Amino acid sequence: MTDSPDSNPWRGFASDNYAGVHPEVMEAIARANTGHQVAYGDDELTARLQEFARKEFGPRAEIFPVFNGTGANVVALQALTERWESVVCPATAHISADEGGAPEVMAGLKLWTVPTPDGKLTPALLDTEAWGFGFVHRSQPGVMSITQTSEYGTAYAREELQALADHAHELGLHVHVDGARLANAAATLGCTLAEAANGADIISLGGTKNGGMISEAVVVVNPDAARGVDFLRKTSMQLSSKMRFISAQLLALFDGDLWHRNAMHANAMAQLLAERVGAIGGVTITQVVQANAVFATLPADVTSRLQAEHRFYTWNEATGEVRWMCSWDTTADDIETFAASVAAQMSG
Amino acid sequence: MTDSPDSNPWRGFASDNYAGVHPEVMEAIARANTGHQVAYGDDELTARLQEFARKEFGPRAEIFPVFNGTGANVVALQALTERWESVVCPATAHISADEGGAPEVMAGLKLWTVPTPDGKLTPALLDTEAWGFGFVHRSQPGVMSITQTSEYGTAYAREELQALADHAHELGLHVHVDGARLANAAATLGCTLAEAANGADIISLGGTKNGGMISEAVVVVNPDAARGVDFLRKTSMQLSSKMRFISAQLLALFDGDLWHRNAMHANAMAQLLAERVGAIGGVTITQVVQANAVFATLPADVTSRLQAEHRFYTWNEATGEVRWMCSWDTTADDIETFAASVAAQMSG
Amino acid sequence: MTDSPDSNPWRGFASDNYAGVHPEVMEAIARANTGHQVAYGDDELTARLQEFARKEFGPRAEIFPVFNGTGANVVALQALTERWESVVCPATAHISADEGGAPEVMAGLKLWTVPTPDGKLTPALLDTEAWGFGFVHRSQPGVMSITQTSEYGTAYAREELQALADHAHELGLHVHVDGARLANAAATLGCTLAEAANGADIISLGGTKNGGMISEAVVVVNPDAARGVDFLRKTSMQLSSKMRFISAQLLALFDGDLWHRNAMHANAMAQLLAERVGAIGGVTITQVVQANAVFATLPADVTSRLQAEHRFYTWNEATGEVRWMCSWDTTADDIETFAASVAAQMSG
Amino acid sequence: MTDSPDSNPWRGFASDNYAGVHPEVMEAIARANTGHQVAYGDDELTARLQEFARKEFGPRAEIFPVFNGTGANVVALQALTERWESVVCPATAHISADEGGAPEVMAGLKLWTVPTPDGKLTPALLDTEAWGFGFVHRSQPGVMSITQTSEYGTAYAREELQALADHAHELGLHVHVDGARLANAAATLGCTLAEAANGADIISLGGTKNGGMISEAVVVVNPDAARGVDFLRKTSMQLSSKMRFISAQLLALFDGDLWHRNAMHANAMAQLLAERVGAIGGVTITQVVQANAVFATLPADVTSRLQAEHRFYTWNEATGEVRWMCSWDTTADDIETFAASVAAQMSG
Repeated sequence: MTDSPDSNPWRGFASDNYAGVHPEVMEAIARANTGHQVAYGDDELTARLQEFARKEFGPRAEIFPVFNGTGANVVALQALTERWESVVCPATAHISADEGGAPEVMAGLKLWTVPTPDGKLTPALLDTEAWGFGFVHRSQPGVMSITQTSEYGTAYAREELQALADHAHELGLHVHVDGARLANAAATLGCTLAEAANGADIISLGGTKNGGMISEAVVVVNPDAARGVDFLRKTSMQLSSKMRFISAQLLALFDGDLWHRNAMHANAMAQLLAERVGAIGGVTITQVVQANAVFATLPADVTSRLQAEHRFYTWNEATGEVRWMCSWDTTADDIETFAASVAAQMSG
Repeated sequence: MTDSPDSNPWRGFASDNYAGVHPEVMEAIARANTGHQVAYGDDELTARLQEFARKEFGPRAEIFPVFNGTGANVVALQALTERWESVVCPATAHISADEGGAPEVMAGLKLWTVPTPDGKLTPALLDTEAWGFGFVHRSQPGVMSITQTSEYGTAYAREELQALADHAHELGLHVHVDGARLANAAATLGCTLAEAANGADIISLGGTKNGGMISEAVVVVNPDAARGVDFLRKTSMQLSSKMRFISAQLLALFDGDLWHRNAMHANAMAQLLAERVGAIGGVTITQVVQANAVFATLPADVTSRLQAEHRFYTWNEATGEVRWMCSWDTTADDIETFAASVAAQMSG
Repeated sequence: MTDSPDSNPWRGFASDNYAGVHPEVMEAIARANTGHQVAYGDDELTARLQEFARKEFGPRAEIFPVFNGTGANVVALQALTERWESVVCPATAHISADEGGAPEVMAGLKLWTVPTPDGKLTPALLDTEAWGFGFVHRSQPGVMSITQTSEYGTAYAREELQALADHAHELGLHVHVDGARLANAAATLGCTLAEAANGADIISLGGTKNGGMISEAVVVVNPDAARGVDFLRKTSMQLSSKMRFISAQLLALFDGDLWHRNAMHANAMAQLLAERVGAIGGVTITQVVQANAVFATLPADVTSRLQAEHRFYTWNEATGEVRWMCSWDTTADDIETFAASVAAQMSG
Repeated sequence: MTDSPDSNPWRGFASDNYAGVHPEVMEAIARANTGHQVAYGDDELTARLQEFARKEFGPRAEIFPVFNGTGANVVALQALTERWESVVCPATAHISADEGGAPEVMAGLKLWTVPTPDGKLTPALLDTEAWGFGFVHRSQPGVMSITQTSEYGTAYAREELQALADHAHELGLHVHVDGARLANAAATLGCTLAEAANGADIISLGGTKNGGMISEAVVVVNPDAARGVDFLRKTSMQLSSKMRFISAQLLALFDGDLWHRNAMHANAMAQLLAERVGAIGGVTITQVVQANAVFATLPADVTSRLQAEHRFYTWNEATGEVRWMCSWDTTADDIETFAASVAAQMSG
């Protein structure tokens, strides 16, 4: 995935991180700013967030607000592993491809990466790396990490996810779900957040792309699988002193229907985009569009002309595949404008 | 430093992190929330923050917004060290005593800790651990890390700091200033932020305690000493996707006089507190009060009765020394109420 | 690669580590045992080893005896990388597949692993992961690590290696050669050890499999590429106090023709094994036999019956591919006995 | 401790690592060199070593041969700790002062170092750092690590050690004994090796200084306290392929009385040295001589003249304290020669 820094970012499709903060989240932040609160999470809003987590993810669940998705992932993976254990994940996983090596550099975690057609593991794909248990020469697989929705914008169906998680558990692996876009998954699957992470022992729950500012969390669903999250959040530089302001964002998004509204909207915009752009000759949509991402191939010269007008990423330099992301504030007008650009460049 | 979790935190003196966010910072955050901006720091506010940094810290300076002070410190120390190098710091340094071991756990950094009377290093104290260069059996000192103001609320005078930094540089060490409370130092010293970090190669610049929400930064003053800060910020899980909201806070605090107003106020409140409480028989102020911290000893039973009413930390269980912190929103009334409590308990 | 622990190891083909120590090496160890010598490498034998290294690998070369191959690799890779840099290597590389995750766990090194048909990288294969320079989200490739001879027993020709190294250098990567079996490579290529590592900046030079006891080394060929090897050897727990005994082994093997005799013999035995066993119907030799390894497929039931008699590894459970290693003390009789077993089991 | 590299090492007192290998150990190595053995510890000698360990350290004990003392320590400490836990040890501990930072750099272990008068912890000294349990800001003490005999050549009496270990266990800490010179401790205490490590959960058992070549081991006494030593030995680059040769050394030393003979001799030589040199005016023996080390102060100019003739270390540049080590092959003649030199220089 390479950048095109000189293009115009405004109303672009490069990332769902280009959007700002949803007004309801901003209001929640402002409301949290009243007088003194105990620092580091012993505040009222974080207590309320714990209640939400138990309601949503089960009575044993615990939630730990953190700063960003990489932080959530690295804390979660450490909590699930012994020092000598490793993680099996798709080759496209954010933890491998897009975190600058944070899991390895910070936590010494080896990743066994599996090539996949659509960013999703299957039991058979998991088996290609989940073996060698007890053999000291092979780094011991201890966790399966999957992304819901995946980096290709695809979603695991609930039963598919449960079957995969069951298979991992049978092998003795713990299950981590990178839910940077779990809201988009639940929206497309028509289920709850918890159901969209069926079988997970621990979840990285993402609020930032869904309309938050700095609003991620580690959710421990199965406390028997995870150790020391509170300590690891501190050592991993993810403990916010004025935590109430992160908790306020997470509550605003998830303890109500804002997450659903935002995700439904972003997903719908991606559908619209795929429809409009997929109808243009020479453009091929390469992945099924289930959430807020559209992947497509188009001629390289068209891509570069488009990138001069709209900022977006070339996902794969070799195939010319590009990625377009929709966010909670993408408008139908944005789509139509962009589709018109594509059509114009394609015929140009 | 142990916690007294059952006490009432409201308007307490446990930490300058209990305060909320200054209204001007909150407004700046709201103003930043307009439409799309490129993520990860390629936005307009972060560009303006760079201009501020060059204006304040010199034309070669670079600033890197991060999430928290521990993150700033760990990124900064990695940037200054080879894999085999270590850090000399006071035994009370936040990086050693209060970060859960983050520098060691995350970055593999050995800390050579030096006992000090007041939280400050001197050239002679530095020499007690800065030796053995070239001897492979001894972890190689590569950095001197000091805190301004120190964890004891004491400040290095400008010439004192310059002389210490010069000594470190002569030994071949780089100089890191943990400036979680650099504003309080500059305010008490009557100088600029840059002058309060005289001789530093790299600074952890803290905005959160000064009235921000999530607003810290690594400032590279001497680019010849630091390598790869942009990469290290990413691997250290400190790269904010919607960075404009951190930059907005830092600009609101530092590109103007808000930092100075807030620090002057907090410092003045600490002076008032020391005066009022120091005048009570049986209370001994143990450190010179230069910034927003007051350290004192008082009878253990008085301390526990007080902690039932006001949340604050016992700094040293053995000596009974306690720490009281003032913040940007501490009021004279808070001080008087607290001083009256101390007097009442002391005579009770 | 899974183990068959109940089989008989004697005169087996599981590993070239099953052999003992060559008598000439043993004599050298005994000769080194005379009185006091300065510890940690300031001894006469280690000084002589330095002379050998400069003679063999060039006037700027430096050699650092270490304990084992994993240690040599991890020290070498650290010396070539910044904290945020990663390593591109074949998916079969020992550093990825067979070191229990040591590079990641101990040194925080991300490995970008590339599937290959024969355990060897090509410029085009290197390109599949050596990209994204300057993009902080992608772990920065800093080193190309290849194995000579590869884990599949294949050798890079000298020109092939030079071209590959040149390509890596053009991309800004440093070049590491894992030479656990560099002697076997030089023997099969008919060249010197240095020529067999053409283009390397740093080499892990292996003596143990070649007839040593504990006798590995890091050889820095290009001091401009590697930093701090002496410190890293210490922090990586690879500094031997009585180093003279490792240096004595390395001198015995490499400062003369013992390495060549041993490697030629082991390679020849593998050729004989491939000939004898390859002639048996139902056995397919799967990799070109250039050094001391033979890879083959044969029916799964034959493999298990054979493993009851002779200890060896199934390399790939899915395909049934097995690995047979010859060592410096493998005899033609061993081969004939084994080939007879294979023939008997195949027709059984 | 700084080096004086230009002095003459022969028959010196710089380190017990300057001595060679005891002839009985050398013979054991030679005897181990018979044909093929399964690599990585599945060999007959390592099996016999396990029997010895159970006999000596209890029926649940397990022994893991490794390469060097730093390796043994780092493997042992990892096995006793969670990722967020730290180690309390004397400031003089080898793990802190003399391993180049290996515990921090390789294993991310924070060390809480305690100043001591004689290199030994007491319950009260342990308490100065073993606190803050459950408080995430303070790195969580998980292990007490002590050295027997200490780096000052002092020994913990058996009851002293048991009481200290009991205290540590009551605090919830595991107990690690760095037994690089455990033989010297057992010899001076008149007890078994196991008794000299009373209360330990895990021991770094040193053979190299006692007359071995490369012969250290991790001994797990309490398997309930230690996890994953076999995996950690591999990830920590301490797994020897031809392990039988290390096991042979350990058996030669410890499964019989060789360790005792060697340690008794070295200890006796240190006593003689202390007597002879302590009787010279101007020389002050600074630590009680219980094992094979003698610490003394003498005038700085005398020290430098002596170091021109005999290699030894200045332990403390500030006080002029020096260290003289005796080894298994130190002779009474060596002592007399050296004492004569001291006397001559002192009167010179």
